[in-house]
Amino acid sequence: MSEALTSTIARIRPGSDDAARETARLLDAKTKPPGSLGRLEALACRLAAIRGEVPAAPLRPAIVVAAGDHGVWEEGVSPYPQEVTAQMLANFAGGGAAVAVLARHVGARLVVVDAGVATTSLPSAGIRTAVVDGVRGTANIARGPAMSRAVAVATVERGVDLGDELVDEGVGLIAVGDMGIANTTSASAVCAALLPASPASVCGPGTGLDQAGVERKVDVVRRALEANDLAPPEGNVDPIEVLARVGGLEIAFLTGVVLGAAARRTPILLDGFVTGAAALLATSLAPGAGDTLIAATRSPEPGHPLVLDRLGLEPLLDLGLRLGEGSAAALAIPLVGSAVAVVSEMATFEGAGVSRA
Amino acid sequence: MSEALTSTIARIRPGSDDAARETARLLDAKTKPPGSLGRLEALACRLAAIRGEVPAAPLRPAIVVAAGDHGVWEEGVSPYPQEVTAQMLANFAGGGAAVAVLARHVGARLVVVDAGVATTSLPSAGIRTAVVDGVRGTANIARGPAMSRAVAVATVERGVDLGDELVDEGVGLIAVGDMGIANTTSASAVCAALLPASPASVCGPGTGLDQAGVERKVDVVRRALEANDLAPPEGNVDPIEVLARVGGLEIAFLTGVVLGAAARRTPILLDGFVTGAAALLATSLAPGAGDTLIAATRSPEPGHPLVLDRLGLEPLLDLGLRLGEGSAAALAIPLVGSAVAVVSEMATFEGAGVSRA
Repeated sequence: MSEALTSTIARIRPGSDDAARETARLLDAKTKPPGSLGRLEALACRLAAIRGEVPAAPLRPAIVVAAGDHGVWEEGVSPYPQEVTAQMLANFAGGGAAVAVLARHVGARLVVVDAGVATTSLPSAGIRTAVVDGVRGTANIARGPAMSRAVAVATVERGVDLGDELVDEGVGLIAVGDMGIANTTSASAVCAALLPASPASVCGPGTGLDQAGVERKVDVVRRALEANDLAPPEGNVDPIEVLARVGGLEIAFLTGVVLGAAARRTPILLDGFVTGAAALLATSLAPGAGDTLIAATRSPEPGHPLVLDRLGLEPLLDLGLRLGEGSAAALAIPLVGSAVAVVSEMATFEGAGVSRA
Repeated sequence: MSEALTSTIARIRPGSDDAARETARLLDAKTKPPGSLGRLEALACRLAAIRGEVPAAPLRPAIVVAAGDHGVWEEGVSPYPQEVTAQMLANFAGGGAAVAVLARHVGARLVVVDAGVATTSLPSAGIRTAVVDGVRGTANIARGPAMSRAVAVATVERGVDLGDELVDEGVGLIAVGDMGIANTTSASAVCAALLPASPASVCGPGTGLDQAGVERKVDVVRRALEANDLAPPEGNVDPIEVLARVGGLEIAFLTGVVLGAAARRTPILLDGFVTGAAALLATSLAPGAGDTLIAATRSPEPGHPLVLDRLGLEPLLDLGLRLGEGSAAALAIPLVGSAVAVVSEMATFEGAGVSRA
């Protein structure tokens, strides 16, 4: 690990129980039966714990969507051609992709990141580069490591830097999303190694494999773990090694965003399975980062519930969303904003002259 | 029934399958794997069916929260004093109640309605009156009818009128909410009579009864059904009779809002159990009104899942919300807006130059 990353991890502290308790106390004084706003109240308390203070003002939201290409695509694990990663990155920047539409709808800033897409012909407007040493895509994990350890660490650091920068600019809530043809295969391998879990228990259809495709994907993940000395899966493996051997560049970047946000006590709103893999990496590196996480959705990918269980997260939405890009996280942003508004704006029984039970 | 109400009901048509199919076709051309936005896509298709056309522009949202008092309060079925209904009505208008905070947060207009609150000292600013013949609260349903048939019909009509008026003013989505100390007892009796179902299967803690309180409530609902010749419950009872005998004034008003919106092909976003009872009344009067409904939440009240099943609705949120007021419906408004935005704003594969699977 680098000195910068070690120092970021050292700054990550557990959430503040005091702030959460004070928020719960304030909520009980509001004009409503105690607890009647259900998990919105729990969410408000969690936000307080993350920030270290009772939420008093709206949290300016940003959505970071990071993209990377995957050498394992050549194993036939996605129905889409690889160039779709680059095409969709342009579509994010152009405003026509789902996450771009939803970001506008919920009033969130969208930050589009090229963490290693297999093209050099991206439009420059609206896309931020985080490519390290010209590495445009991982190697095929079914045959060997995805990337060097140095590239993995440097890409994580770029994610940390973006998290830092956004907080410096006044962002108070960071939603994360991913794009990368074949990236659920890489996410499955990361989860299989870290949970640990069998390839068959974490692999699913991704953006649209049939049953035969899922079986092929299970075999690819099994071969990836074997080729990278991660099989049979066992605990206590070095998370950076897992990332470098079977991860992805966008997964590395998003791991860094989570760590950077956690070090700045800024809530992270997770999207689906791929961002879940990044969160699993981040919490494996810094367990305290888990206190910073909020889950937006439960993905139909079978590995996702296992990741949510491990992270101790119950998602806010369960609408069968499986697009990625941060689309589910975008949809959950108004719920986070509402939790803050309830704490900061609702009247108390005393203030409004309402009788108690 | 009155001529006006009969004519409203006659104008209610089933949803348009053509518009729903056309929306599904458009969604499949958007830059995402088919179906990957899950229930958000189904919601977009439902909105199209309701409106009779593909959603092309944002639906301006309004939240109607109607309040009424309940004579059955004297049976000890709520932990709150009756004056809380009036106090909360003032709190809605004053902006400090949960639904008022959430309405601001989601950009919805809030319409506060006094459908029969047991006070004459409400602030006039920001509260719309729908009181019929000076009836400020129902009689105790455990001893006889809640209201006359004439008051029931006239109150429903006032709800229809508000629905009409809002649509005339450009509102495209009407969320509904309720306030009324003891009103889950009345809602339970309505549901028991209409589903039909036993009192024990529909009664729950409401805003905070303990187990003994719930048992008392079951007994009160049983007595209400008996006193009003609605026991043993059976199907095919006249919904207006059920409303007049065991309903509430806010429930009558909200039934009218649902009917009025349905007649104008305007989607209704339901809140929890009490608005569910109003929807059950509306669909008993006009089955086609069911096509207009969207469920925001699953209430912990045991009668609510029975109502949702009958209405064929799967709620958008399941966050343990049990406040009422329209608070859950308010939280779901951004999801409805997002469904429209995805249809109207997302790029197509062809338009964005993205390759297909």
